[in-house]
Amino acid sequence: MNTNQVHIFDTTLRDGEQVPGCKLDTKQKVIIAKQLELLGVDVIEAGFPVSSPGDFKSVVEIGKTVKDVVVCGLTRAVMNDIDVAAEALKSAARPRIHTGIGVSDSHIQYKLRTTPDKIIERAVAAVKHAKTYVEDVEFYAEDAGRADNEFLARVIQAVVDAGATVLNIPDTTGYCLPQEYGEKIAYLRDNVNGIHNCILSTHCHNDLGLATANSIAGAQNGARQIECTINGIGERAGNTSLEEVVMIMRQHPALGLYTNVNSKLLLETSHMVSESMGMMVQPNKAIVGDNAFAHSSGIHQDGVIKRRDTYEIIDPAEVGVDQSKIVLTARSGRAALAYRFKNLGYNLTKVQLDEVYQEFLSIADAKKEVEDSDLEQLMKGVAA
Amino acid sequence: MNTNQVHIFDTTLRDGEQVPGCKLDTKQKVIIAKQLELLGVDVIEAGFPVSSPGDFKSVVEIGKTVKDVVVCGLTRAVMNDIDVAAEALKSAARPRIHTGIGVSDSHIQYKLRTTPDKIIERAVAAVKHAKTYVEDVEFYAEDAGRADNEFLARVIQAVVDAGATVLNIPDTTGYCLPQEYGEKIAYLRDNVNGIHNCILSTHCHNDLGLATANSIAGAQNGARQIECTINGIGERAGNTSLEEVVMIMRQHPALGLYTNVNSKLLLETSHMVSESMGMMVQPNKAIVGDNAFAHSSGIHQDGVIKRRDTYEIIDPAEVGVDQSKIVLTARSGRAALAYRFKNLGYNLTKVQLDEVYQEFLSIADAKKEVEDSDLEQLMKGVAA
Repeated sequence: MNTNQVHIFDTTLRDGEQVPGCKLDTKQKVIIAKQLELLGVDVIEAGFPVSSPGDFKSVVEIGKTVKDVVVCGLTRAVMNDIDVAAEALKSAARPRIHTGIGVSDSHIQYKLRTTPDKIIERAVAAVKHAKTYVEDVEFYAEDAGRADNEFLARVIQAVVDAGATVLNIPDTTGYCLPQEYGEKIAYLRDNVNGIHNCILSTHCHNDLGLATANSIAGAQNGARQIECTINGIGERAGNTSLEEVVMIMRQHPALGLYTNVNSKLLLETSHMVSESMGMMVQPNKAIVGDNAFAHSSGIHQDGVIKRRDTYEIIDPAEVGVDQSKIVLTARSGRAALAYRFKNLGYNLTKVQLDEVYQEFLSIADAKKEVEDSDLEQLMKGVAA
Repeated sequence: MNTNQVHIFDTTLRDGEQVPGCKLDTKQKVIIAKQLELLGVDVIEAGFPVSSPGDFKSVVEIGKTVKDVVVCGLTRAVMNDIDVAAEALKSAARPRIHTGIGVSDSHIQYKLRTTPDKIIERAVAAVKHAKTYVEDVEFYAEDAGRADNEFLARVIQAVVDAGATVLNIPDTTGYCLPQEYGEKIAYLRDNVNGIHNCILSTHCHNDLGLATANSIAGAQNGARQIECTINGIGERAGNTSLEEVVMIMRQHPALGLYTNVNSKLLLETSHMVSESMGMMVQPNKAIVGDNAFAHSSGIHQDGVIKRRDTYEIIDPAEVGVDQSKIVLTARSGRAALAYRFKNLGYNLTKVQLDEVYQEFLSIADAKKEVEDSDLEQLMKGVAA
């Protein structure tokens, strides 16, 4: 695994769907899975088969449908979970079982009510059992973000020795700071024998707004898989946003990292997921929000009209957006007003522009946004 | 300035309002300004006075209303802008003029069409002019995120010598990675004479989803003011979210940083801004989203019912949320079902729970969310 490719593990249909009000049926899930394959993700986590009959069926159908992508099913470190996941993945061309257990003090003592040594035993047993069904076994060390690094390394060493192929280091509660999370990944990379034959994976939650930064810090320190969801949906404040990590790697070639995602499909994939789950995306969402490429202040509009990259680092076309929007509000200046008039076929002289500008401002102070129809109205009062 | 307090500079009413569809009138702005004062922010950027008569008036009225907070007006490095801002701030108890100019190659060559030396001249002239009106003058080095650090330090040295009190280093296009932005702040801290008598400020945009991480990296490297907005609203993908940076500093005492914000008012402030601007907050928004403290998967619900901090790092009450939500979906397990039944007054035996669980799952596979009324219905079929 000596490449600079970062695998994109999409968990929109598992961790993303684990959200109040987001339940999808199998048909909807298959449609999204096809879109994710088209988008170029490397792994689709299709569900948690033991959790419900509906989820089991979705994993089966997605496994039958997509061919070029690894299809993954989630389990606890519980034999029956693994048996059921293996059954659900039988028709998949490239099946992966994703099993794991909590490794933080909080999870060991209060949730699992067991001891560190027992955790390692259960982790190893789960990986070995999963290996009897499939070659590709991913292990998650739940709440690794709050776990002691030395104990975490012991767990990871044990599952690497048991045959795990991918090692997921989740910041389950979204607690870590980027530097801290990066150091955790580096610690494992440097202290687990044989880890270079496996893929280290990030799985970050956004409770403090740091999921994206933490995932990138992980990749900078050796992780070669990022687990993420479209629009960053997921339990609580959600997971890492696929669109954000993909575009960071594209915009920062100095990182030396790349993904196979076709960024031009990001916006349509975002819309599909948002609509089928009924989970709206806020206008100021990075990359895929309605306003991500909209400019309404005068200073910014003037800059963007002169040259796009003054205020835009991403060409909107690269993520499937038609063009930057120049929205007219009370913060807009003469440059934006002239630009929008020009789009309507009016080439105003400087004198004409000065004449309409004050009137434009009083309309704009009263309205949230000035429309083309308002401009047409304004032009009626201008001397020809 | 040798403290560990990070000043919170709220620009909801200036950069936040600079958004298509978000226009507020003076009355609405004054209501929000009062709430921000109550919330405990240190500075309110009230508007850009020269941009429109409505904005001028809002700065005047906010200046008359709030007393404990610095009120700031934005200007370009243009003498008339500064004159108008000074006029608008005349009644403010603690006025600040915020002036600045672009410092990146892109801004100097394409937007401003000038030379680096001319930029420094204009910056110094603007700061000196502002100082004739107020003691507290903040300078912004627009597009500092993409500027050469050596040139940036020359500009900052010149404005420090001219009397600027606060130095704003904006990542205007949301381009920087956290480490890169942190190093930029450290470079200025270490290379500008007299900077220790001033406050270094972050102003990050969220185009790549990194605004929060970049702001914290800035504070870790010496910045003692963070510019941010409620709900992270603002031009394009928005600004740094106030609620996220405040809670990161609270949750990570090892940073050794604190703010004066009363976090218990975060949710109500978020709702007020969202409603008055008509800018909805997505359910998976960190801290203030509807789902930020909602648990729907069985594994998580079981953990949280046993002990809250298994899956929650923030006590919801700390940010003004009543309590964690246990939402019943097809991903819920027996523990959550029993918990919700108990809230309705039913203490189910293990046998009764097994009996209703399969039926619950089929309802849940068909519905997005199982309500109390569904549970009451379910109980009718259970043997007493």
